[in-house]
Amino acid sequence: MRKLLIALFMMAPVSLLQAQQQTVEAIFSNAMRSDVAYENLRVLCETTEGRISGTPEAAAAVEFTRQIMLEMDLDSVYLQEVMVPNWNRGEAEIGRIVSPRFGPSEITVVALGRSVGTGPDGLSAPVVEVHDLDELEELGREALEGKIVFFNRPVDQAHYNTFDAYGGAVDQRFHGPAEAARYGAVAAIVRSVTTAHHDHAHTGVTRLREDGHNIPALAVSPVGADQLSHQRRLDPDLRLYVRTTSYTLPDVLSYNVIGEIRGTHYPDEIITVGGHLDSWDNSQGAHDDGAGCMQSIDVLRIFLEEGIRPKRTVRAVMFMDEEIAQRGGNKYADLADERGESHYFAIESDRGAFTPRGFSVDASPGRVEAMQSLQPFFAPYGMHEIFAGGSGVDIAPLKNYFDMTLVGLVTDSQRYFDLHHSSNDNFDQVNRREMQLGSAAMAAVIFLVDHLDILVN
Amino acid sequence: MRKLLIALFMMAPVSLLQAQQQTVEAIFSNAMRSDVAYENLRVLCETTEGRISGTPEAAAAVEFTRQIMLEMDLDSVYLQEVMVPNWNRGEAEIGRIVSPRFGPSEITVVALGRSVGTGPDGLSAPVVEVHDLDELEELGREALEGKIVFFNRPVDQAHYNTFDAYGGAVDQRFHGPAEAARYGAVAAIVRSVTTAHHDHAHTGVTRLREDGHNIPALAVSPVGADQLSHQRRLDPDLRLYVRTTSYTLPDVLSYNVIGEIRGTHYPDEIITVGGHLDSWDNSQGAHDDGAGCMQSIDVLRIFLEEGIRPKRTVRAVMFMDEEIAQRGGNKYADLADERGESHYFAIESDRGAFTPRGFSVDASPGRVEAMQSLQPFFAPYGMHEIFAGGSGVDIAPLKNYFDMTLVGLVTDSQRYFDLHHSSNDNFDQVNRREMQLGSAAMAAVIFLVDHLDILVN
Repeated sequence: MRKLLIALFMMAPVSLLQAQQQTVEAIFSNAMRSDVAYENLRVLCETTEGRISGTPEAAAAVEFTRQIMLEMDLDSVYLQEVMVPNWNRGEAEIGRIVSPRFGPSEITVVALGRSVGTGPDGLSAPVVEVHDLDELEELGREALEGKIVFFNRPVDQAHYNTFDAYGGAVDQRFHGPAEAARYGAVAAIVRSVTTAHHDHAHTGVTRLREDGHNIPALAVSPVGADQLSHQRRLDPDLRLYVRTTSYTLPDVLSYNVIGEIRGTHYPDEIITVGGHLDSWDNSQGAHDDGAGCMQSIDVLRIFLEEGIRPKRTVRAVMFMDEEIAQRGGNKYADLADERGESHYFAIESDRGAFTPRGFSVDASPGRVEAMQSLQPFFAPYGMHEIFAGGSGVDIAPLKNYFDMTLVGLVTDSQRYFDLHHSSNDNFDQVNRREMQLGSAAMAAVIFLVDHLDILVN
Repeated sequence: MRKLLIALFMMAPVSLLQAQQQTVEAIFSNAMRSDVAYENLRVLCETTEGRISGTPEAAAAVEFTRQIMLEMDLDSVYLQEVMVPNWNRGEAEIGRIVSPRFGPSEITVVALGRSVGTGPDGLSAPVVEVHDLDELEELGREALEGKIVFFNRPVDQAHYNTFDAYGGAVDQRFHGPAEAARYGAVAAIVRSVTTAHHDHAHTGVTRLREDGHNIPALAVSPVGADQLSHQRRLDPDLRLYVRTTSYTLPDVLSYNVIGEIRGTHYPDEIITVGGHLDSWDNSQGAHDDGAGCMQSIDVLRIFLEEGIRPKRTVRAVMFMDEEIAQRGGNKYADLADERGESHYFAIESDRGAFTPRGFSVDASPGRVEAMQSLQPFFAPYGMHEIFAGGSGVDIAPLKNYFDMTLVGLVTDSQRYFDLHHSSNDNFDQVNRREMQLGSAAMAAVIFLVDHLDILVN
């Protein structure tokens, strides 16, 4: 496949390739001069802060993005119904170290997504600190029963890619509380899975036990975790008090939001570009993933303004509920199958609106090579990394039904986990130019794979 | 030269190259886990804000960095005397639109570096808006005499590299006021040369006329520039009032600050790693260039902690006065020549503490190729761009005396000119991980060029 394109580069009339390069340049120029998506993101962040699935803010985000696309000259704008979880944080959480030696002190905590509550009185217990799940098993019920288990393994900063740092620590958050419950712990508190050392706590989903025996599960800020660890070592009588009134209501109806430009040659072949519209309830969800949604809509704006008529139908999709149960992404794939659609290519932006570095390609080796053959178009924009890897949580279910190419927009990861799932993921952390390079990169790659038909085999 | 290293890669025992790769990995791991340089930058920013040459803050920065290096296990720490300019901003500037139609309104202005003052009463005049120097010449004395010339060409956001955007607009700031003075203008006001659209004004040095006929020169924030341009079009009677009490005193004594690790094999051959210690007086100078200084010191810390003994002498140099007259860089080169030193390699970090992308190499084509042969060591850290280009303002004068290799650390440029020379260039804009990747990149490249001797021919 790569050879095919290399052959294409060698055989095609120079004017053809120049025309493609010129279109790519026009796409980037348009994106870099525009502030439309950035200003839309500002409004989304300011008016729908905390839009976790099931909330009024999530509903407002659905309507806002639908309105944006209705005002554009698109061929269709519509909603897809999807039932989504309705987990609620309740009142602001309390975390308090109760130390006879050091006195009481508050630490910054947030309930993890899907956590059960402590009841209105909260609960207090001695703390057992562990650093991984094996240590939990070694300690066993005798050491853990009636205790609060404190998972305190920080991320390893030595990783260049912060997704590796995150991936090396997030097991504590996802599996830790459910495993601690097995041994009779009364609650679990997890060091925030973050590259920052600050007093923000980072939430995220935690696994529920199938047997229904779940305990309250919270994240603590890195500063709070260090304090707890330090005082616990020096005061054997220390206890931790935690209170969360989080609760789960029955699923509610929500929507994926979709806008389309119909293809000129193969209107029944679909190209998807998307992000997820829900965010955690403790932030504006600027990088995760309001920006990905606005970039996806911006791809359509750029196509319209630059007069690029795609051969295939290009859809911008705002997926609902990535954070808790990925219902929007699964529903999108299920409906695509039910309706007998044909899917050619999908790309998701859900790694923060930072400077793009390349594309992660989930496809056959031949198609990965075909994607890599596009490298010369992207090198002038600092994108040098096109490799086989995962795409995006919301588009991945399409793989269950379609023999297609799935791509994740890869961005500079250094700052992402400073913000991710915390009250710090706000609009003021987004740089317009970095965000717009992502819009342009997605528009350009869609233009190229559609125009050059390089992924058909 | 590149072939030489490729040959080296092919012929060297595998264990040798693995050892080098392992050292590079150790350097990056050390840097990414450390917050020493970041915390030093915090103190520098908080205690020496506004350290333009000649100020007490600049003197404090000299002493602070000297103390940091004295506390390290270096072979020597010393100062180099250098006479530096002593320009002072005076009182906070005033910019006021006086419009019979719209009423008066304040706009955010700062005097440009080296500007003369307006006198204590300020001055008021009609405004002529121009967009380039040619337009000035076309208008001529008749249109400009007694007026304030308003240079209002924004940067072109379409450039991927923001240094190109900056370079395409900065002629207005550097040459504009001096040229406007030729035609009898009474003052000049220049749209801030920035990629941001905000209400910060960005200063920077402006050229003085050799005939001594200089007029007050100020920068206006992008928001202020838009307001002035809009109201000026609609109100022919509009005048602008500006006031700056900036002034220049005689040169004063200051210092370059130097710390060294003596080479084991060729102690008389020098490798320089540096940044500039002065900043503009209206900011903390976090990215420009406090970070570059702290990264340079961090290279020495990493060498010491990792037990890397360089064959050549490695010097961290904090250059004084980059912003106004580049006296520190020139003095360093002059002294190197006077003392009969031998210089092998120099690298400067002065493009902001953002994620490094590569190296810009000012050397013979063979040495550029030799540098490019190091690419495999840096690709795992997202650095793919090693190219022939300029190095750094402070190390460039070494070229006048030495046949050597000069390198600039190239970083992600997207955010730099949002902050550059403005009151926004503060510590809170620096990300620890991005900064530390720069420390590591410089330590690694110095280790490699020293260890492999690839730049000797």
